[in-house]
Amino acid sequence: MEINKGLENVYVKETSITYIDGELGRLYYRGYSIFDLAELSSFEETSYLIWYGKLPTQSQLDEFKKRLAEHRELPASIVDFLKKVRKDANPMDVLRTAVSMMGIEDNNKSESLLDKAISITAKIPTIISYYHRLRKNLDLVEPRNDLSHAENFLYMLNGNLPSEIERKVLDVALILHMDHEMNASTFACLVVASTLSDIYSAIVGGISALKGPLHGAANSEALKMFIEIGRVENVEEYILKRLENKQRIMGFGHRIYKTYDPRALILKKYAKDITRLKGLEELYKIAERVEQVGIKLLGSKGIYPNVDFYSGLVFYSLGFEPDFFPTVFTSARVVGWTAQIMEYLQDNRLIRPKAKYVGEIGKTYVPIHNRS
Amino acid sequence: MEINKGLENVYVKETSITYIDGELGRLYYRGYSIFDLAELSSFEETSYLIWYGKLPTQSQLDEFKKRLAEHRELPASIVDFLKKVRKDANPMDVLRTAVSMMGIEDNNKSESLLDKAISITAKIPTIISYYHRLRKNLDLVEPRNDLSHAENFLYMLNGNLPSEIERKVLDVALILHMDHEMNASTFACLVVASTLSDIYSAIVGGISALKGPLHGAANSEALKMFIEIGRVENVEEYILKRLENKQRIMGFGHRIYKTYDPRALILKKYAKDITRLKGLEELYKIAERVEQVGIKLLGSKGIYPNVDFYSGLVFYSLGFEPDFFPTVFTSARVVGWTAQIMEYLQDNRLIRPKAKYVGEIGKTYVPIHNRS
Ligand SMILES: CC(C)(COP(=O)(O)OP(=O)(O)OC[C@H]1O[C@@H](n2cnc3c(N)ncnc32)[C@H](O)[C@@H]1OP(=O)(O)O)[C@@H](O)C(=O)NCCC(=O)NCCS
Ligand SMILES: CC(C)(COP(=O)(O)OP(=O)(O)OC[C@H]1O[C@@H](n2cnc3c(N)ncnc32)[C@H](O)[C@@H]1OP(=O)(O)O)[C@@H](O)C(=O)NCCC(=O)NCCS
Repeated sequence: MEINKGLENVYVKETSITYIDGELGRLYYRGYSIFDLAELSSFEETSYLIWYGKLPTQSQLDEFKKRLAEHRELPASIVDFLKKVRKDANPMDVLRTAVSMMGIEDNNKSESLLDKAISITAKIPTIISYYHRLRKNLDLVEPRNDLSHAENFLYMLNGNLPSEIERKVLDVALILHMDHEMNASTFACLVVASTLSDIYSAIVGGISALKGPLHGAANSEALKMFIEIGRVENVEEYILKRLENKQRIMGFGHRIYKTYDPRALILKKYAKDITRLKGLEELYKIAERVEQVGIKLLGSKGIYPNVDFYSGLVFYSLGFEPDFFPTVFTSARVVGWTAQIMEYLQDNRLIRPKAKYVGEIGKTYVPIHNRS
Repeated sequence: MEINKGLENVYVKETSITYIDGELGRLYYRGYSIFDLAELSSFEETSYLIWYGKLPTQSQLDEFKKRLAEHRELPASIVDFLKKVRKDANPMDVLRTAVSMMGIEDNNKSESLLDKAISITAKIPTIISYYHRLRKNLDLVEPRNDLSHAENFLYMLNGNLPSEIERKVLDVALILHMDHEMNASTFACLVVASTLSDIYSAIVGGISALKGPLHGAANSEALKMFIEIGRVENVEEYILKRLENKQRIMGFGHRIYKTYDPRALILKKYAKDITRLKGLEELYKIAERVEQVGIKLLGSKGIYPNVDFYSGLVFYSLGFEPDFFPTVFTSARVVGWTAQIMEYLQDNRLIRPKAKYVGEIGKTYVPIHNRS
């Protein structure tokens, strides 16, 4: 009776959505290389690809963009919740609760799962931006449906139209986070969906898992690390000490990649550009040095930078605060979650593993007055 | 590359909490037979057993009951939410959202996981009872900390003190639902917890999974089936038709038990008593006949009544409406969830399985104006 701790190398389904080559450091969505998609595609086009299985024609894309844009507004009950919730909450807790509320508000039984996936995906940036602004006592900026997904997100967040480079960097970052095969949060979605629970419950399960520092919160942990280090000169000592104390380098290591994560490779370039633009090049330099030192110390064990290593610098440069990074991750990964849920439900089976019992059995129940 | 669809017979951890003997139809918590615990123990004593690993002495139990009782009141924000939420919501959606809000309200970093588990477990019956009464436009009944867990639950629900048999039946039902090894909702909790996310997120993941009709909502589906059947004479035809249409008999079948679920065996007796007391014996008779017919048709395949078959009759008799049954299930299972989470975190590993890619790779990204 073997214990598959962490389910490493256990296959739970077939998929035609995402392929990771962990040896070569390659990633494909629906057969297209992430390098091409990041360079040439947009949030809308790549989500269409992931959901529908093929790239859209121009008219399909136009129609699809319109559909996404139409669903950005939040139900009044959720706006009300965001206005009243404490301002020092963890944004992932707020997002998890808001999506859970969306499940209450939606009693449309005739919509398809994909309809719902589109509606949820359209609304998540609104939730994030509203809470971001409410926390800072800023006026809410309502969504504009004449803007692309990435443009509108930054517009609602910062209250002004993004520059072309900002828009591009967010599109790239969202594309890179959109799906990643059977990662922990996607798997949490499937465990929930396999009971034939609803799609909101499944996504709430995904958000719950993505919140963890071993998963979606590694981005903010990595950035906090760079800030804590403070100066390039401090990197080496800091990292050595951290490893000595058996602490992990956040944004390093991956269950599947045993080489450089291609998403980190792509983001690094954009991180360099956007941090310079925003006067954050010092932080970038610290990160670059952490990367060098980290690879020197851990590379031989197959531990390299992952997507969360540079994404924090990018999100930060775009106006997101560190505790919001995992919510931005969520806003992209929800596309992969819902695609994987729909794929799994085509041939559902309840996900119900086992635990190996190692205790005693057959103990005698002693009445309470005879216990010691 | 084998696909472990549903993770059947895949072991994800060791445990010393619960042991199921699926061949003989036996269940043990911490080594004690469920038959003894159901007959002799109480909600408080069995949750102590599950959390601490041993039966309490009288003074430990007194102290523990006091702790549980002290945590029954809800934060104002949650009461406010319950008052405003739509009255036609699914109670599991409401409970999922309310527990998610508890995660926002709790910013006590010095408490242990067990402290939090106790607080959450104490509050869930209050959430359930409040929403039950608000939905019926009844005044809220605040928790009383001089009552036992089961007594107080029924008191808040129905607005008067339960009889001794009602109290006993609820205690038994809660004990039977408290843990069940690596079922889907418990596993959802672990997937979330394995990312080092927080305990509220993990429980929210559990609630999300338990909501499914293949899991915690089978109890209400079973009761709806009995009501739909209407008369004992209709049972045979109804069941035959259902199976012909490839629909499942709800409350039948189990991944692990290939014989009679001991929990169903125990509940059946109490269901008989309590339905008679409440003038619901006709429903009980229908259930009994469904059981006979079901076993005749499915027993040879190892498909027998499970816990959800009779629990609905019990919950219904105690004053819970069918769509609330999975929330009552939750109010007990949360003990198992939190115990299993704490056990897993003693030696955590990220739960990250794989999917086998069966699509193409290396497709060429064609510019949009060249697509057809
Ligand atoms: C992502 C992660 C959980 C995957 O790891 P995994 O497959 O579960 O591997 P394990 O946790 O079993 O770690 C294997 C070994 O590598 C080490 N290791 C893994 N990641 C490490 C890191 N970032 N820094 C230092 N050591 C690391 C572990 O300490 C362990 O060493 P040991 O065998 O001497 O005990 C892990 O790399 C990690 O915690 N990284 C940091 C958080 C992060 O960036 N997460 C985002 C992932 S996209
Ligand atoms: C609980 C349950 C999901 C576990 O089943 P599982 O191990 O995943 O088994 P599968 O779903 O693969 O079913 C195996 C076979 O038994 C049949 N089966 C299982 N439960 C059945 C039921 N309640 N009624 C009729 N047929 C059933 C399936 O149709 C399948 O038949 P097939 O091989 O001819 O296709 C399943 O028994 C079920 O759906 N039961 C009804 C819901 C329920 O009561 N859930 C509460 C469980 S505590």
